Amino acid sequence: MNNIDSIRISILSRIKPHDPEKQKLSALAESLIRRINAIGRDMGLDIKAILVGSSARRTWLSGEHDLDIFIIFPPEASREYLEKNGLSVARKIAEEAQRSEERYAEHPYINAVFDGFEVDLVPAFGVASAAEIKSAVDRTPFHNEYVLSRIKGLEDDVLLLKQFLKGCGVYGSDLKTQGFSGYLVELLVINYGSFVHVLEASREWRPGMKIDIEKHATEVHNDPLVVVDPTDPARNVSAALSIDNLCIFMDKAREFLNAPDASYFSVRAVVPLEDSDFKNIMEARGTSLIAIEFTAPDVVEDVLFPQLHKMEDSVGEMLERYDFRVYNSGVWAEKKAILVYELESAALPALKKHAGPQVWMEEHAAAFKSRYSGSNAFSSVYIRNGKYMVEIPRKYATAKKLLEIELPKCGLGKHVALCIKKEYHVLENEQILEIREKKFREFLRKFFTK
Amino acid sequence: MNNIDSIRISILSRIKPHDPEKQKLSALAESLIRRINAIGRDMGLDIKAILVGSSARRTWLSGEHDLDIFIIFPPEASREYLEKNGLSVARKIAEEAQRSEERYAEHPYINAVFDGFEVDLVPAFGVASAAEIKSAVDRTPFHNEYVLSRIKGLEDDVLLLKQFLKGCGVYGSDLKTQGFSGYLVELLVINYGSFVHVLEASREWRPGMKIDIEKHATEVHNDPLVVVDPTDPARNVSAALSIDNLCIFMDKAREFLNAPDASYFSVRAVVPLEDSDFKNIMEARGTSLIAIEFTAPDVVEDVLFPQLHKMEDSVGEMLERYDFRVYNSGVWAEKKAILVYELESAALPALKKHAGPQVWMEEHAAAFKSRYSGSNAFSSVYIRNGKYMVEIPRKYATAKKLLEIELPKCGLGKHVALCIKKEYHVLENEQILEIREKKFREFLRKFFTK
Repeated sequence: MNNIDSIRISILSRIKPHDPEKQKLSALAESLIRRINAIGRDMGLDIKAILVGSSARRTWLSGEHDLDIFIIFPPEASREYLEKNGLSVARKIAEEAQRSEERYAEHPYINAVFDGFEVDLVPAFGVASAAEIKSAVDRTPFHNEYVLSRIKGLEDDVLLLKQFLKGCGVYGSDLKTQGFSGYLVELLVINYGSFVHVLEASREWRPGMKIDIEKHATEVHNDPLVVVDPTDPARNVSAALSIDNLCIFMDKAREFLNAPDASYFSVRAVVPLEDSDFKNIMEARGTSLIAIEFTAPDVVEDVLFPQLHKMEDSVGEMLERYDFRVYNSGVWAEKKAILVYELESAALPALKKHAGPQVWMEEHAAAFKSRYSGSNAFSSVYIRNGKYMVEIPRKYATAKKLLEIELPKCGLGKHVALCIKKEYHVLENEQILEIREKKFREFLRKFFTK
Repeated sequence: MNNIDSIRISILSRIKPHDPEKQKLSALAESLIRRINAIGRDMGLDIKAILVGSSARRTWLSGEHDLDIFIIFPPEASREYLEKNGLSVARKIAEEAQRSEERYAEHPYINAVFDGFEVDLVPAFGVASAAEIKSAVDRTPFHNEYVLSRIKGLEDDVLLLKQFLKGCGVYGSDLKTQGFSGYLVELLVINYGSFVHVLEASREWRPGMKIDIEKHATEVHNDPLVVVDPTDPARNVSAALSIDNLCIFMDKAREFLNAPDASYFSVRAVVPLEDSDFKNIMEARGTSLIAIEFTAPDVVEDVLFPQLHKMEDSVGEMLERYDFRVYNSGVWAEKKAILVYELESAALPALKKHAGPQVWMEEHAAAFKSRYSGSNAFSSVYIRNGKYMVEIPRKYATAKKLLEIELPKCGLGKHVALCIKKEYHVLENEQILEIREKKFREFLRKFFTK
């Protein structure tokens, strides 16, 4: 038995659900489905509940305890009918839950907790093929069917790849993580045949490469990895995967194959950064740290994080445009949203050089000279390399001042822009230690050590 | 009488030699020529002395008091014969000078002072045409002849243009000044017909433009201004003129034509920078100043300054290569040579980001990771935009340290390299005030105000 085989056995013993867990999950799923169907009959609705997702495919990681139960309506039902009656059935079920709340994706659904299992109760249209879907969730039953028809015997490999991706920190297709979805993992294992074969194949991957199991792609996708949905030729299953998360997986896969080790399947514990750590790190690095802190808008993470990343980019570009050189940046959010920028220096000289037209461009020359021969300039207008030059006061000599004045003019997403308009704070170096949230301090630790 | 005419009259009254000065110069020149010819006869040499340069053409500025007397040998004389006998004649003449010294251009000559006039006694070959010259100075008699044949009536305009160029700080074709030579000024006036016409014509000049009075150019010159020598079709008379000095003239010419004023003909007096001025300026600017100080090599300025400018460029490039951003630089030299660099900051963070190969380049990736997974790095190897990145200690976190260690590795001219090898000092900010030479302090004043 080689090293990978023994690692496989030891990891599976940890991540594969044991019989009591499986039985508990099956029993809960069956009872919920039975009750939904009964309620539907009582209400005179033509609905059918089905279990979908990893719990339906035996590809869930032990302890995950997530159930996706879809309440399927006839395709000819109207959206309003589905939303009203779907929610009403789901609410009745949720009455017996430990706790529950309404959530919103393309349409509303109920998230409820029964007996320690987190259950999503999702109304959907039972369309005839994935090409006819009326809302994004209608695809899920087709995914379920496709995977179930091919996954037999590969379930353990799916579990291993999921756990490996968790160890890399790139599992999850939500827009905060931008990693691999469970369905994507299943398709990769189906395509390559095993956990190890996926890893080996990734050594040859290049950004932009395409996997089309059913050879039926109809669209060109400009994504780091393209995995054509076997149930929908127009869709890229890995559209949410970022180039860096793809590369992190490729890098770790190669490392693991070169020197297999069980540690790749463990999530790295991060120690929150203490005040003294922060001071030592900043002193050693000699850089400046700037944080922008504001109340996060009350929207789901899939709406929030794309806006935060957009803000991260546009603020970074603005800093560079004003000559503040950005070494690193990052975003963090819970109740507060915080953007952090590490700068070469948060302070610049009071002056900046400003280049004018070529000396022989008479008209532009006259305009430039009349504009800059003022009294507040650091130099007279002079000539370098055939061009007029002048030294003028720098508009913002500190990054803090720049952000306090100009931040609202950056390109910002709708919800973030509204929050920024209300209030935000710019903190510099040790002022950042006023932010005491443990999760933020973990973020800061990762920010520095990577 | 328009404004320019009245300025012309007032400036000429100041710069045009009056009769006593002219008579004194003529008398001195005639007596020296007579005595050289007599000495030649006594020594049995076939030589003939002639007066060349601006004093021969009535285009010298009052008070300049320079005489160029050439001792012409037959073209068939050997170089050794000319050097030996030419110097021997010149030395005899110089015996009666107030002081004299031997100097070296392409061959040796004597510089002597008679009665307040500085006289160059230069041996040369009397070749039949400028195309047959045996040394660079042999050209001068042809220039003399050409100008004398066309300058009649334009002498005042030559004087005005020379004085105007002095006011701009761009008169002199030595390699320290890199400006306009006297001969170039004469040709421009001959070509355009008057002082004002030269200024007006310059409004249409563009870098690379060519003036070829005799329409006989045989070479392509890649210089800011090309004025083909009427006595030598292969030569650009304005080869020494820098792009910026050309542009300074064009700029001032335009300014003067738009608002004529006598002040353009005055050399701006520069007040040496006091210690307190320096401190105030540096505090207001918020930049860092670095000076490199060493003993200047004992060579003529035409050898020294090109080497200093080469050093200025290569040190500037090195500073930028190590992330020190250069705002301004300059060179100054008398006994000491001093290079000055104004930097955005003379200190940088302790770390720098170092980009590695793309993640999918397996072989390069392995090399990069094994090299940078060391313990002295500020971060682990991480991934950004599909590439490996790492933060490593910056080799030089201060410009002073960088220059103290790496300066000798810069591209340096021969004589400067030898001096730098011996000893040099790097001074930072107020340390530069240890340099107390008045002329250096004038240079510093101009360095800041431009």
